[in-house]
Amino acid sequence: MAGNSFGQAFRITTFGESHGPAIGVIIDGCPSNLEVEIDFIQAELDKRKPGQSKITTQRKESDSVQVLSGVFEGKTTGTPLTLLIPNEDQRSKDYAHIKDTFRPSHADYTYQTKYGNRDYRGGGRSSARETAARVAAGAIAKLLLKTIGIEIFAHVSAVGKLEAPNLEHLPFSELLNMRENNIVRCTDPATATQMIDLIDTIRKEGDTVGGKVSCVIRNCPVGLGDPVFDKLHADLGKAMLSINAVHGFEYGSGFAGSEMKGSEHNDIIVPVSRKKAKEHFKTLTNFSGGIQGGISNGMEIFFTVAFKPVATIMQNQPTVNTEGELAEMQGKGRHDPCVVPRAVAIVEAMAALVLADHYLRDRTIRS
Amino acid sequence: MAGNSFGQAFRITTFGESHGPAIGVIIDGCPSNLEVEIDFIQAELDKRKPGQSKITTQRKESDSVQVLSGVFEGKTTGTPLTLLIPNEDQRSKDYAHIKDTFRPSHADYTYQTKYGNRDYRGGGRSSARETAARVAAGAIAKLLLKTIGIEIFAHVSAVGKLEAPNLEHLPFSELLNMRENNIVRCTDPATATQMIDLIDTIRKEGDTVGGKVSCVIRNCPVGLGDPVFDKLHADLGKAMLSINAVHGFEYGSGFAGSEMKGSEHNDIIVPVSRKKAKEHFKTLTNFSGGIQGGISNGMEIFFTVAFKPVATIMQNQPTVNTEGELAEMQGKGRHDPCVVPRAVAIVEAMAALVLADHYLRDRTIRS
Amino acid sequence: MAGNSFGQAFRITTFGESHGPAIGVIIDGCPSNLEVEIDFIQAELDKRKPGQSKITTQRKESDSVQVLSGVFEGKTTGTPLTLLIPNEDQRSKDYAHIKDTFRPSHADYTYQTKYGNRDYRGGGRSSARETAARVAAGAIAKLLLKTIGIEIFAHVSAVGKLEAPNLEHLPFSELLNMRENNIVRCTDPATATQMIDLIDTIRKEGDTVGGKVSCVIRNCPVGLGDPVFDKLHADLGKAMLSINAVHGFEYGSGFAGSEMKGSEHNDIIVPVSRKKAKEHFKTLTNFSGGIQGGISNGMEIFFTVAFKPVATIMQNQPTVNTEGELAEMQGKGRHDPCVVPRAVAIVEAMAALVLADHYLRDRTIRS
Amino acid sequence: MAGNSFGQAFRITTFGESHGPAIGVIIDGCPSNLEVEIDFIQAELDKRKPGQSKITTQRKESDSVQVLSGVFEGKTTGTPLTLLIPNEDQRSKDYAHIKDTFRPSHADYTYQTKYGNRDYRGGGRSSARETAARVAAGAIAKLLLKTIGIEIFAHVSAVGKLEAPNLEHLPFSELLNMRENNIVRCTDPATATQMIDLIDTIRKEGDTVGGKVSCVIRNCPVGLGDPVFDKLHADLGKAMLSINAVHGFEYGSGFAGSEMKGSEHNDIIVPVSRKKAKEHFKTLTNFSGGIQGGISNGMEIFFTVAFKPVATIMQNQPTVNTEGELAEMQGKGRHDPCVVPRAVAIVEAMAALVLADHYLRDRTIRS
Repeated sequence: MAGNSFGQAFRITTFGESHGPAIGVIIDGCPSNLEVEIDFIQAELDKRKPGQSKITTQRKESDSVQVLSGVFEGKTTGTPLTLLIPNEDQRSKDYAHIKDTFRPSHADYTYQTKYGNRDYRGGGRSSARETAARVAAGAIAKLLLKTIGIEIFAHVSAVGKLEAPNLEHLPFSELLNMRENNIVRCTDPATATQMIDLIDTIRKEGDTVGGKVSCVIRNCPVGLGDPVFDKLHADLGKAMLSINAVHGFEYGSGFAGSEMKGSEHNDIIVPVSRKKAKEHFKTLTNFSGGIQGGISNGMEIFFTVAFKPVATIMQNQPTVNTEGELAEMQGKGRHDPCVVPRAVAIVEAMAALVLADHYLRDRTIRS
Repeated sequence: MAGNSFGQAFRITTFGESHGPAIGVIIDGCPSNLEVEIDFIQAELDKRKPGQSKITTQRKESDSVQVLSGVFEGKTTGTPLTLLIPNEDQRSKDYAHIKDTFRPSHADYTYQTKYGNRDYRGGGRSSARETAARVAAGAIAKLLLKTIGIEIFAHVSAVGKLEAPNLEHLPFSELLNMRENNIVRCTDPATATQMIDLIDTIRKEGDTVGGKVSCVIRNCPVGLGDPVFDKLHADLGKAMLSINAVHGFEYGSGFAGSEMKGSEHNDIIVPVSRKKAKEHFKTLTNFSGGIQGGISNGMEIFFTVAFKPVATIMQNQPTVNTEGELAEMQGKGRHDPCVVPRAVAIVEAMAALVLADHYLRDRTIRS
Repeated sequence: MAGNSFGQAFRITTFGESHGPAIGVIIDGCPSNLEVEIDFIQAELDKRKPGQSKITTQRKESDSVQVLSGVFEGKTTGTPLTLLIPNEDQRSKDYAHIKDTFRPSHADYTYQTKYGNRDYRGGGRSSARETAARVAAGAIAKLLLKTIGIEIFAHVSAVGKLEAPNLEHLPFSELLNMRENNIVRCTDPATATQMIDLIDTIRKEGDTVGGKVSCVIRNCPVGLGDPVFDKLHADLGKAMLSINAVHGFEYGSGFAGSEMKGSEHNDIIVPVSRKKAKEHFKTLTNFSGGIQGGISNGMEIFFTVAFKPVATIMQNQPTVNTEGELAEMQGKGRHDPCVVPRAVAIVEAMAALVLADHYLRDRTIRS
Repeated sequence: MAGNSFGQAFRITTFGESHGPAIGVIIDGCPSNLEVEIDFIQAELDKRKPGQSKITTQRKESDSVQVLSGVFEGKTTGTPLTLLIPNEDQRSKDYAHIKDTFRPSHADYTYQTKYGNRDYRGGGRSSARETAARVAAGAIAKLLLKTIGIEIFAHVSAVGKLEAPNLEHLPFSELLNMRENNIVRCTDPATATQMIDLIDTIRKEGDTVGGKVSCVIRNCPVGLGDPVFDKLHADLGKAMLSINAVHGFEYGSGFAGSEMKGSEHNDIIVPVSRKKAKEHFKTLTNFSGGIQGGISNGMEIFFTVAFKPVATIMQNQPTVNTEGELAEMQGKGRHDPCVVPRAVAIVEAMAALVLADHYLRDRTIRS
């Protein structure tokens, strides 16, 4: 009943606090005989790790992953696969000032009230550091999805009010090159430059800014998703909304779709020549975002995730302490001026976990 | 693993197809000794039922609820509470034309491919008729939440491009009166008239239109929500995204929040005089939407849900049949030109189910 | 969290009280395209139904099953399959004497204390009537298992101190004939006669007696069962122990195995000529009961279940009432002098549910 | 769906192989503010650890436990509590002889067939080493149960055919002294001496022997257990049957109860003078084993678990290899001649986990 597990057939449970000895994840249900490439897991973690550029937090963590169980001679055994990431850069004294004071728009007050105590160092369990464990598990999910051809690509589509042009029609290999060519992980070079400048300016003001990450999934077979509650987009939505700082999720036509008419929005189905299952039919438009009735229809799946600005700012703010008295929260510590560049890896990981789970669940549904 | 259950401690499982003998729901985990008011359940169902006004589908269903188990002498016994709603108006012959043809932007193709067969009558299990079972279960959840004072109010905030002014600061009793005073369930009378006209026009064109439902939750105690995956807003998001036709969800500052700076977005905490737990502190603004770190903070919770236009339109459309040949889908049947007036009851029900579940889950977390 | 569901991939949720309008079950996760033979479900129910012979309770229930959802044109659709069994013979006034009095060795006191109220009519939810829903669901599970050849056979192996000779080496068709040839469902005719006499004598004394049901499973493929907690025998054990009146479970060598040496108990593996997976190897003995490390090894699975005597006897007994005062429980009502003849169907059903679940779960475990 | 988790509200997931870097467990749902005594966890582990006496395996493992998460300043925080036990004495070369050969009555063949590969070193995941993680988690469960007074005591009641006299009427403090006074963990000194001699003789013969562990639970409040499938004894049964080598479980009157009449077996209820909830009523006898209708009734809970003899013997045995050819399994390695002395700690731990889970689940069931 506690909420630290995600997925049913491909199920992860994460653990660990920002300033404890380590964070990690158990994957239970990962199929056997899958080749585990540690370098790939590490590469995924490196996209999320702090200190990777001037526009991310300067906290230093190598985020080196260790395999504790579930892999033998390079392959999964079907038993619980445990990944451990030791914490390294723990300046716990940096957090003495928040021991007795609640930071605005943080989880300090709600954790303290719910649990009656809290590990205040770096936010403890509420720290976004937990998402490193998700990225590690997501890498395993990606390796599984790769065996059936499913590919996932996320990118920064907005920082503050700066929106990037939509280039999602391009091949993934091209998009990946364009994205990794700049530190903000936007596929459009011109917008990327503007975004980096904006974040840098905001950072110098001691402030933070929100943004959006968009994600595209290709080669998803028809049939993933489990009506009625575990619709594919409902599980994707929950996955994204469970990421720190996310305030919104839309897929396919999204919020704009609510302004459309049915005659515009309906995706007309047409036959395709090749008879491979997932290509039997396609639709002329894709306002459905690749999902109909909660089940993938073989078209591209796409969605966008909205991130609020990081709550930790380098400015002093009024607040209250645990005694209920007025207090001042000092603006210090090491934090991201904007989370979206690092969130790209988290969005991809969570999408991979949802798809891996539904891929396995789908195996049980026909007699 | 099949997805017809929702919730953990307060857990529902729905069943039934649009044109089978009945639909229904089992609630497992409803606490004992709760007074069950059948009239209240029926009143909730009446807000969702078809045929209630000129702007809803003319299909006639009384949606009369029966209690099959779990209630003795008017009170819950703690055993599974089963609610049954017999189907009445089943013109199955209306659906012969879709037996071998896939309707655009419906679940026909995905169900057929996933399961290898389908009950095509009225969409079978993919029909939004299933949501009547959710509304019935949500009524029980509301009765439980009432015992601790939690109140939920949803309303139509947009139809197509028509947005209603935000009146969510008013008392619920007032808002309820205003909402139930018009058939579109918008709290603002002037906008309601425009919305009704718009839907009526769209209906006459044989077309449909999307819209938005917004929801506010008051008197939620501090502490509901279970990090890290079962954050309160993540579960609310999944609940809403599992409703037919929903394409987007945002809470608190939502998508607009992604354009803000941290210094604007942070909700400053101030003490309040009365020392009752949930009123110990409050925040001056509420961009957090009443949830911080995935846990309710005692402020108002609010969110918005985007519905795409209904896919069934009264216009002929090209499509394909099950043989992969081009076909024409005739525009006929009885369907809603816009779902949001009836969806208000569904949104409230799903919100109630999430809160009831987390209310019970929260009881286990302190020693 | 409430305990009315069983299984994960093939998951049932039962509902209903002894004297409510109906009992029933939702099966979620039953694969699509399975042919549903109503006559077979009814035949299974008939083996469990009351009033079938002079040695069972004389309560009259036809236990006629209705399909409410999940079946279309005779086949499962992959959506929740709901089976309903209306209650008929409800002489609720028979139970007025237990409204305020706790029956010895019944669930009256524990339900009342746990839930704060109880449906006292016929034991309400604690009645073994609930197991009819399990038998109905088990029939569906059997139909699924039949598609892969798995067969299940249970029989009465003991009544009181009367033990039947072990004939489990015979073909199932033969055993079935022998079992259904007598009303106590023992495979050995001579012992059956003695058992029937014993039960009849006990019944006339207004008393009851316990017994044992043994079960054999044939043609189970190698590989079912999920270590470490969901070992196949652990799930079988839980399934059996969840049946009313069961006090013990043993599989393979069972309790007697605890007295053996390893050199006697080890099942020596030998090759078999035919190369079909499940027949690749076999063991010379089968003290392991067809399960090693919690996973089926292709040999016959067998286990025995011990039932205590029914608590309702036709003799007056001292007890206490809800006020804590001494009271007398009158010996009346209609109950079984011995449950094992009717329990045979329940044991088979629960075994089928466990195997169906693990059969589906096993589909997800290899990449 | 994979089976490495146990419990719902108090839920553990174990991981790790016999010869991997470490084994461990995540506890999710442990209430916050519980004092965690590391010394107590270690003391529990020491009762299970190998090499503790001449009648256990001589493999050396200190089984030193580390806390990776979920504890802050000595108290639980309500976040996942992770315990790690590094593996130390890994003589993997000892296992080269089983790489390509299936040991009789082991899990080698079933794991290999189910998963398509296996970590053969020391049995990998199928090794009873996994139970150390359960004992560590069980220690936390015991600390939780201590806060409401529940006490658990297990002991060796049989080795082979040697049965100990039943001393379960004595106070736990006395029983504990008697049990820990001998290396076989039997409460009766005379029988203990015989048991030790028997095991020592068996060991010298290169053989192994089975046995039984019995367990008593005191001060359990009325109301734990969740009908109908999650009856308290059904969950205890599954817990015990999931322990390596267990072939049988009985509670209360057990198998002997199946030979009794209802008039003998019924536990007559009588009032008690003190009005404390759990002591409101008691029963004159306790054939129900403290559980009625699947729910605890406040009386002592007791059950017995049957362990088969360990499959690894120091004698050569015929078998087959992975090619399907006849082979000889050499009798070597370091293993227990009888598991019950070490199993006492495992039985107590699993019982504690079941009770902690149901204690928390019970908190949600009344409105």
